[in-house]
Amino acid sequence: MDFITILGLAAATITTISFLPQMFKTWQTKSAKDVSIVTLVTFITGIFLWLIYGIYLQSLPIILANAVTLLFNLIILWLKIKYR
Amino acid sequence: MDFITILGLAAATITTISFLPQMFKTWQTKSAKDVSIVTLVTFITGIFLWLIYGIYLQSLPIILANAVTLLFNLIILWLKIKYR
Repeated sequence: MDFITILGLAAATITTISFLPQMFKTWQTKSAKDVSIVTLVTFITGIFLWLIYGIYLQSLPIILANAVTLLFNLIILWLKIKYR
Repeated sequence: MDFITILGLAAATITTISFLPQMFKTWQTKSAKDVSIVTLVTFITGIFLWLIYGIYLQSLPIILANAVTLLFNLIILWLKIKYR
């Protein structure tokens, strides 16, 4: 694997797992009033478009990274609505 | 411009601008205790790698989207630290 591919995979992995701490924090504190729901819904919409884009391009890294990011952010949105 | 390119540009634009409401919310409420700093720092690290990736690929859309996303999230991180 060349350097650029490794760099892209590292970037995709790190941005994807970055939402785990927010998920666990919201779960534990049962509070998300400071988290913007407009940001969450807009971000989820954009990530959904990235997923469709990846499916069109048949790019497994784009599909995987965005499917997992979508899942994490849907859970954060669900917790945000649940604990408001 | 073909459909896939428009889809990718829409995805990039929407995910990028999605951080504006969080920025303004934190600015206005002067509170970000529910926002995970670990998520912010990890996400910023990942977006920085995406930016380097875009520079290597000489892809203007990847560079632009990630440079603006990086800027917005650095401002959110700064506000988070300022108002803790």
